[in-house]
Amino acid sequence: MITVEKPKLEVCLSPALLHLYDTKGAVVVIIDIFRATSTITAALHNGASKVIPVATVAECIAIGASTPNSLTAGERDGKVADGLQHGNSPLEYPASFIKGKTLVLTTTNGTRLLHMVKDAAEIVIGSFLNLTVVCDYLIAQNKNVLLGCASWKDKYNLEDTLFAGAVTDAVQNHFSINCDAARSAKHLYKSSGGSNFIEFLKDSSHYNRLSAFGLEEDMAYCVTPDLHPVVPRLQGDSIIAG
Amino acid sequence: MITVEKPKLEVCLSPALLHLYDTKGAVVVIIDIFRATSTITAALHNGASKVIPVATVAECIAIGASTPNSLTAGERDGKVADGLQHGNSPLEYPASFIKGKTLVLTTTNGTRLLHMVKDAAEIVIGSFLNLTVVCDYLIAQNKNVLLGCASWKDKYNLEDTLFAGAVTDAVQNHFSINCDAARSAKHLYKSSGGSNFIEFLKDSSHYNRLSAFGLEEDMAYCVTPDLHPVVPRLQGDSIIAG
Repeated sequence: MITVEKPKLEVCLSPALLHLYDTKGAVVVIIDIFRATSTITAALHNGASKVIPVATVAECIAIGASTPNSLTAGERDGKVADGLQHGNSPLEYPASFIKGKTLVLTTTNGTRLLHMVKDAAEIVIGSFLNLTVVCDYLIAQNKNVLLGCASWKDKYNLEDTLFAGAVTDAVQNHFSINCDAARSAKHLYKSSGGSNFIEFLKDSSHYNRLSAFGLEEDMAYCVTPDLHPVVPRLQGDSIIAG
Repeated sequence: MITVEKPKLEVCLSPALLHLYDTKGAVVVIIDIFRATSTITAALHNGASKVIPVATVAECIAIGASTPNSLTAGERDGKVADGLQHGNSPLEYPASFIKGKTLVLTTTNGTRLLHMVKDAAEIVIGSFLNLTVVCDYLIAQNKNVLLGCASWKDKYNLEDTLFAGAVTDAVQNHFSINCDAARSAKHLYKSSGGSNFIEFLKDSSHYNRLSAFGLEEDMAYCVTPDLHPVVPRLQGDSIIAG
């Protein structure tokens, strides 16, 4: 009998813990549910030609200015940042608007984590909006996986971990898992009941913060599974539909 | 009607995240269930005059040599470290053995976190062995609280978070809690069923690691609530019974 060792799956709960994980040759999933990775997934599924993630508003403006058929987007404190054209809501990017365009997007947490990952075989974008196709993709790659939560200014957050738990639960038979963060994420997912995510997340820091900006509809959209079945992948400096 | 603001309770899941929290004036609970804080609690409740926590084996030997009526203890990789006298098991320190003595103890994760905390009003030692008295103590202090998980080489671990969740659940009505790590710890505690902790922890990294050293009985002891009702507090360089 030949025993084939399964690849490893781990969960990193904060960018401040990323150095503890070996991402070399692994598939790293960037998770920033509210709302960077949800918006990237929606925009690409709706036909954006690519998304260029950048760290600062100044970069966003500069790259937008030099990129044909592009638009700049990003928020600070729940409002479109000064000098940018659009916000960070997946609902702002229907096909009628975004098809064929390049979205230059600045976000605080998701972009930062994405730029921190080195040596990965592949960096993909995960959100509830593409939950099932991301899980299928991870299983098909047969490589080590790190689920990376963007968190909030390095502090643990509930919604990113909930998604990591949903993925862990779905793919667990295909991976070797000896990671307490993955176990805990799975327990959290089970605690949520696995369906009414927005109700579960109403008691969370981010829900409190973003509902003060009137973004309840946005958040409900962001936690709806499989609305946008695409696997966004980083290629060079851009994210493209896989 | 006068509204009195409740003090804040937060949970820090790893020493690598400690810098994100303001510990000034707060009561910080150091949590290292397997096994530093369990052993400290047991030794002090059984009559040790104090515990001196140190980072390295060399310090442990030096301080032990210069401290009357002391004994040195610490493990590396599940065995008594070379040059030390005893191990890191709460079961090694019954009253008949430890009463009136100073325990000079070196541990990797718990000691490190303890030495990292600055400006706290108070540093106390938490474990399942003193769960209820620690909760009562935190409520009585009426100060901000940070529950600090020692984790394992900065990686999230299940047993420390489980304890943080047990405390959060017990004291939540007395604190203002807007911390996703605290919410998550509470969900984890609820997932455990709140009683058979060792069964719940059998699927955890630390259980796997320590059971390979034959330490199942030790771990079961460490997660038994309220066997040693004492609140160990840091005073200078020593931990004393509160």
